[in-house]
Amino acid sequence: MSEFHSKIKTIEWCEIPNGGYSRMVDQTKIPHSFEYVEIKTLEEMYNAIKTMIVRGAPAIGIAGAHGCALYALELSEKYKETNKETFLKELLNGFEYLNSSRPTAVNLSWAIEKQKEIVEESKNLPIEEICSSLIKNAAKLENEDIEINKKIGNFGAEVIPKGAGILTHCNAGALATVGYGTALGVVRSAFAKDNTIQVFADETRPRGQGAKITTFELVKDNIPVTLITDGMCSYFMRNKMIDVVVVGADRIAANGDTANKIGTSTVAIAAKYYNIPFYVAAPKSTIDLSIKSGNDIVIELRDEEEVTMVNGKRICAEGVKIINPSFDVTDNSLIAGIITEDGIFKPEELKEKLKI
Amino acid sequence: MSEFHSKIKTIEWCEIPNGGYSRMVDQTKIPHSFEYVEIKTLEEMYNAIKTMIVRGAPAIGIAGAHGCALYALELSEKYKETNKETFLKELLNGFEYLNSSRPTAVNLSWAIEKQKEIVEESKNLPIEEICSSLIKNAAKLENEDIEINKKIGNFGAEVIPKGAGILTHCNAGALATVGYGTALGVVRSAFAKDNTIQVFADETRPRGQGAKITTFELVKDNIPVTLITDGMCSYFMRNKMIDVVVVGADRIAANGDTANKIGTSTVAIAAKYYNIPFYVAAPKSTIDLSIKSGNDIVIELRDEEEVTMVNGKRICAEGVKIINPSFDVTDNSLIAGIITEDGIFKPEELKEKLKI
Repeated sequence: MSEFHSKIKTIEWCEIPNGGYSRMVDQTKIPHSFEYVEIKTLEEMYNAIKTMIVRGAPAIGIAGAHGCALYALELSEKYKETNKETFLKELLNGFEYLNSSRPTAVNLSWAIEKQKEIVEESKNLPIEEICSSLIKNAAKLENEDIEINKKIGNFGAEVIPKGAGILTHCNAGALATVGYGTALGVVRSAFAKDNTIQVFADETRPRGQGAKITTFELVKDNIPVTLITDGMCSYFMRNKMIDVVVVGADRIAANGDTANKIGTSTVAIAAKYYNIPFYVAAPKSTIDLSIKSGNDIVIELRDEEEVTMVNGKRICAEGVKIINPSFDVTDNSLIAGIITEDGIFKPEELKEKLKI
Repeated sequence: MSEFHSKIKTIEWCEIPNGGYSRMVDQTKIPHSFEYVEIKTLEEMYNAIKTMIVRGAPAIGIAGAHGCALYALELSEKYKETNKETFLKELLNGFEYLNSSRPTAVNLSWAIEKQKEIVEESKNLPIEEICSSLIKNAAKLENEDIEINKKIGNFGAEVIPKGAGILTHCNAGALATVGYGTALGVVRSAFAKDNTIQVFADETRPRGQGAKITTFELVKDNIPVTLITDGMCSYFMRNKMIDVVVVGADRIAANGDTANKIGTSTVAIAAKYYNIPFYVAAPKSTIDLSIKSGNDIVIELRDEEEVTMVNGKRICAEGVKIINPSFDVTDNSLIAGIITEDGIFKPEELKEKLKI
């Protein structure tokens, strides 16, 4: 394959003698430049997640898994076998710390939980082997991610009508995952079968991931994309230019209520009004059966400046109040289907039919 | 009154010996600076409307009336009484030209139509008197505007619940009119009775009139205002922080379908979903009974750069397609009431009950 998305890995473990580091695309620089950064410590990973150098629920999950491995390597230089108890205690404290970098996307805690299981299984082995087990598991999750996304893409492509206008919000693309993407994975799989489809990308204020990242990766792959402002979605729906909506997810509750980037719920309500099917594309790791409904999902509030400043300049009067929720919850009743690597499920089927 | 809005006039006719000019707030500079510009010719007025130095349907109407008077003054220097036929022909051609500066807001053509009537009535008088009639009528429309808005404000305040969170989109404030405002006129009248109300202002991409202008004028008048991105409206509705929506209008069809700033319809759909009443506040001059439904309203498409560039810097990849409609149409079924200077009407009552 010669597509752009297949030539890059958004986040990748790089092995070096006696260790390794995490290499990731710096997403704060797109579309103006495409740069990689090397993350070598727990603290660097915490900051990379918090400042959104890496973003997108599945990519954050892999970043979490890498961060756990990095911290094990850091601690292995500090502690000998005789201090293994302290090593293990500090290691798990570090996992908790990393988990606190962003609260809404469940993939982070899911991946860290997977690494905790590895620590539990290997805790009686030498420190060096605990480290290598964590690295091995991080690499496994990383490799699985692309395969999962391709399955999501293939299932999702089935519900995309011929020549469809597909609306998406934020970026659930190759750059939100290790590669290929979830919502944009569906777009890629659909486009491979029918190159008359086209994408409408919400710019996704305040951070503009739709404008910056979704347009970037679709243009690179020659998939036609029209950028619209978030409020425009109903205009294009009313004018029959949108046939289907596909978005990603940060956490899906047991009843199918879905937390995703702020603005998603507004699009879902508009789609319902115009009888346009609204799909969520996400790996099973995004489904949190421990959470009953969307009301119980913690919504991250981020800095005022994300709203008040654009390209380094203030866009509003001084003295205005800001509340900046980074996510919203889309009611299960607005969702036509949740596209996973195991198939497409109605929100109400999740608990019963999905094997997690 | 000591409020900011009562100390300024957004657009005002300034008399000078043998003529006059139009003085207006340069709205492209807000909130960073507050400057007036003097408009002295038809061409300058055309450009001021087109580039949105003056914006807001009622203010554009007054700008249109001023522009007609300015052109009469220009032509009066060129033509003598013996050329009155040419004077009148060129004058009316100039009116048509001015009317083409922006297509969607009906107030522009409404005001120009009013000036055409003046020309018709005074066409047998000397050119000098035609000029003074046009100036007098422009001043009359200008003065009526504030009175109309105060009536709209008083009627509208009746439907604002105690301590309400009021969502508004774009700017239908003092700066969209000669003064006081339509949607923000309702806010001002409500706040005068109950200072526990607060406003949530959509930033209103692409041009950000909500962020720039609405926050500016509300902060100046000490009315509490929270700036949100356009996609956030449903988040605040779901969290029961919005009790009512009030917006302005650019053209209301006979069936009550309402064209207003792009993104309005999306807010109206979300409000309906959450059973929040959605009001349109507009003078009767905004109601166009010659247009049957919203489907017949011409929607202005504006430059790509409004979407792709913010604060002088590109926000998206090169190669993306842009469609930039400046307005959308809100279905009459989504509108709880249309607040005019004659009272509040249901959309379906307009044709029957409204005396225009």
